[in-house]
Amino acid sequence: MSKIFDTLQPYLDKAMALETARSLFEWDDQTIAPFEAAQYTSKVVGILSDEYMKCLINDDVRKLIKKLKEDKEQGELTDKEKAIIKELDKTYEQLESIPPEEYRKYNELTIVANRAWSKAKKDNNYEHFAPYLKKIIEYKNKFAGYRVKKGQEPYDILLGDFDECFGIKDLDIFFDKIKHEIIPLLHQVSKKIDTIDKNYNLLEYDIDKQREFNKYLSGYLGFDFNRGVIAESAHPFTLNLHNHDVRITNEFNKNNLESAMFSAIHETGHALYEMNIDDSLTQTPVGGGTSMGMHESQSRFFENIIGRSEAFWTPIYSKLVETYPENLKNISLEQFIKGVNKAEPSLIRTEADELSYSLHIIIRYEIEKAIFAGEADVDKLPELWNKKYQEYIGLTPANDAEGILQDIHWSFGEFGYFPSYAIGSAIASQLYAKINDVMSVEDYLKEGNITPIREFLRDSVHKYGATKNTNQILMDVTGEELNVDYYIKYLKDKYEKLYSL
Amino acid sequence: MSKIFDTLQPYLDKAMALETARSLFEWDDQTIAPFEAAQYTSKVVGILSDEYMKCLINDDVRKLIKKLKEDKEQGELTDKEKAIIKELDKTYEQLESIPPEEYRKYNELTIVANRAWSKAKKDNNYEHFAPYLKKIIEYKNKFAGYRVKKGQEPYDILLGDFDECFGIKDLDIFFDKIKHEIIPLLHQVSKKIDTIDKNYNLLEYDIDKQREFNKYLSGYLGFDFNRGVIAESAHPFTLNLHNHDVRITNEFNKNNLESAMFSAIHETGHALYEMNIDDSLTQTPVGGGTSMGMHESQSRFFENIIGRSEAFWTPIYSKLVETYPENLKNISLEQFIKGVNKAEPSLIRTEADELSYSLHIIIRYEIEKAIFAGEADVDKLPELWNKKYQEYIGLTPANDAEGILQDIHWSFGEFGYFPSYAIGSAIASQLYAKINDVMSVEDYLKEGNITPIREFLRDSVHKYGATKNTNQILMDVTGEELNVDYYIKYLKDKYEKLYSL
Repeated sequence: MSKIFDTLQPYLDKAMALETARSLFEWDDQTIAPFEAAQYTSKVVGILSDEYMKCLINDDVRKLIKKLKEDKEQGELTDKEKAIIKELDKTYEQLESIPPEEYRKYNELTIVANRAWSKAKKDNNYEHFAPYLKKIIEYKNKFAGYRVKKGQEPYDILLGDFDECFGIKDLDIFFDKIKHEIIPLLHQVSKKIDTIDKNYNLLEYDIDKQREFNKYLSGYLGFDFNRGVIAESAHPFTLNLHNHDVRITNEFNKNNLESAMFSAIHETGHALYEMNIDDSLTQTPVGGGTSMGMHESQSRFFENIIGRSEAFWTPIYSKLVETYPENLKNISLEQFIKGVNKAEPSLIRTEADELSYSLHIIIRYEIEKAIFAGEADVDKLPELWNKKYQEYIGLTPANDAEGILQDIHWSFGEFGYFPSYAIGSAIASQLYAKINDVMSVEDYLKEGNITPIREFLRDSVHKYGATKNTNQILMDVTGEELNVDYYIKYLKDKYEKLYSL
Repeated sequence: MSKIFDTLQPYLDKAMALETARSLFEWDDQTIAPFEAAQYTSKVVGILSDEYMKCLINDDVRKLIKKLKEDKEQGELTDKEKAIIKELDKTYEQLESIPPEEYRKYNELTIVANRAWSKAKKDNNYEHFAPYLKKIIEYKNKFAGYRVKKGQEPYDILLGDFDECFGIKDLDIFFDKIKHEIIPLLHQVSKKIDTIDKNYNLLEYDIDKQREFNKYLSGYLGFDFNRGVIAESAHPFTLNLHNHDVRITNEFNKNNLESAMFSAIHETGHALYEMNIDDSLTQTPVGGGTSMGMHESQSRFFENIIGRSEAFWTPIYSKLVETYPENLKNISLEQFIKGVNKAEPSLIRTEADELSYSLHIIIRYEIEKAIFAGEADVDKLPELWNKKYQEYIGLTPANDAEGILQDIHWSFGEFGYFPSYAIGSAIASQLYAKINDVMSVEDYLKEGNITPIREFLRDSVHKYGATKNTNQILMDVTGEELNVDYYIKYLKDKYEKLYSL
């Protein structure tokens, strides 16, 4: 144990406490805070962010990190300490270039901008949100500009904040492969859409019963209610204060069974990741999931690969039918599985089927890339958005609420996040291929035993927190870095079988 | 506007942010946080408390306050600034003497102790809580010891933290008068208890309907849902982040109508105080209610004087009957009013009637006084508690859950708080006498118009925050300092009429 590291510890602890407080304010804002609180609370959050910056970015810490990097070369540090220093180095690179006052103002802006988005979506009025979006983009561009290196574009910086392993060049190739293979497949499938009837999904589903069944599902997958809670918000999300306090939310629609159900499974996947991070890592800079892509791999593994499989539902489908006998008594398990996997081009990303999902992501990726390349006018984004939806999905939004205003991400300044969903799906497929080498996932699911699958993920992915990056984890578990071919093969096999292509 | 004060402002802002964060963690802990989170979250809260101390207690701030106190004499400060300096001076007096490390450990202890109390109460096992209670008392004694001045006892210090206007000497007189007048009155009333039938109160009352009706009641009294929220916790409480985010909780019992209903009105009284504090004061050291006594005066004014009056229920009793027709259709308004005012000695303070309530407080006051005078053994507190209950109330708890473990306060180290409830009742009566000089409260209540009453309180009490102390407010509004005679007269008039004595 390095003595210099001991000197660093109080700074890390203080930063952790301030960051945890900021997370709690975010949770609170999304779940329960009263409407008019924002203006006053944003002042508090702004000060906490400012203090977080001051605590990490200062001469004392800078000197300690420099010393520790020398130590590192001398091998006096534990692996955990090395990982923390690497993470701090990244944080330094991310934050040091940004003047604290700008960072504080930006953080205050995102709280207000999120409210504006919420109102704009409700009122279906993009013009109300556009000025906030412009300001956020200005800040993001400015912040990226401070950090951009030779050969990089500003958008590379934003992408890198969510996963250091992938930039524009990687993703252009990644998405091109998907486009090349999936659009034709979706085209084939679209012709056979009517062979699957899922009208049952839009009948009336009592919200209290949805709440109860989805809570059951989360628990069935391994969500530990002694270490986590479930609440409600306008948009489902997962947030953790540490590995003993992991929270997920859901949003219910009484005329849609699947929407909240697959959100519950998705967020539970995120939650399991955070709950399984090693106790020795939580509350440190490497105490969270390693990347947004890896995080999405866990949520999408549970949502799609597990949650939409016949084996998963075999032991519990009867419970779902008992919950809503009037709606489901005549729907067989086979028909239900076809239903939840129906590839039906739609306008809303969060309700998209697994096959067309990545096309929603490609649209966002291309728009974000255009914005930060200076090739898109913010006022005209709805038109760009609608044009791309028509082109890739074959549908045009009737209004901005179901178009460009549908996602919360940009209102928080989360540009560069969306690709993580597609990367996550690809990682999930790659991990799934590996898990199947060492156990029969199908058999365990049919027995109602999720534990071996969850433990495999815990031991190969979760417990390491951010001590390994995405490609290191993939290399250690699967023997290769991210390879989109597994994803494409998974989708092809699944949908060719489902639609007898 | 003083320039030195401008230099102080960033310290105040940071302290405010840290304190608001700590409040949010408290809210979260009481309402939603998962069970196992405590250990990790208490580390966060400990660090935030530590930072709060460091931010306020340091040489820079000490010098600024000294300079400002000189300024104050030169009249260069605004009234608000003067009040803030006085408040800071108090905070300095409270905190400066306590070593930061001790303060941090104490704050961490209270989180864990509260969990222990919660478990002890559930398991009816005082022995599980006693070791934590002992440690808390040790800390409180130590902290008070640092601050005690000549002629003061440690308990005076604890009392003074909740209201600078009242110490042991004042309260001995205050409580003696109450004891002298109320115990005989209760004795007379006890003989006539059976003349009032309130069996209806213990029928089954659907909890969802209680939730809805009590939300209605809070709104009816003026709770602004754009600036506040209602949640649930093991023990009802009010907490505010600032004047635009004021939160109350409730606890429901399906076999008791009154319990949650009068808690809702009580906490709404607290909430109205915080919501009505002037915008220019919120988020400053004088941006909260001036004392716990004054706070309790507002909650108890609404709970008892307003909430248990026939005039209040005249326009809305039918709505309550419609909510529970099967239980209340044969209960007249007159019978209901007699019921909610029935003086029925009981073991639980929060469910005590208005008449015997102050006796519950006297018991706690006497026990606390004995603890800090070194005259009570913590292990034997249950016996002392039970003895006093038999003596004053005429009842002995069957177990510690309904005895010494019933209140949350001590688990948070809140010794010296309980007298505030009785002081609050006395203030409420004194204010009520004054309000009736300037308007007919009864007429407004019968019209269903709470606004003039609420506005009187806002303009004479609420808006000032902590810029005036309890006695200053009372002097300005009623022309005299706290006078317990109004309280005694109010109770005598009310109960003599109610029981035709």
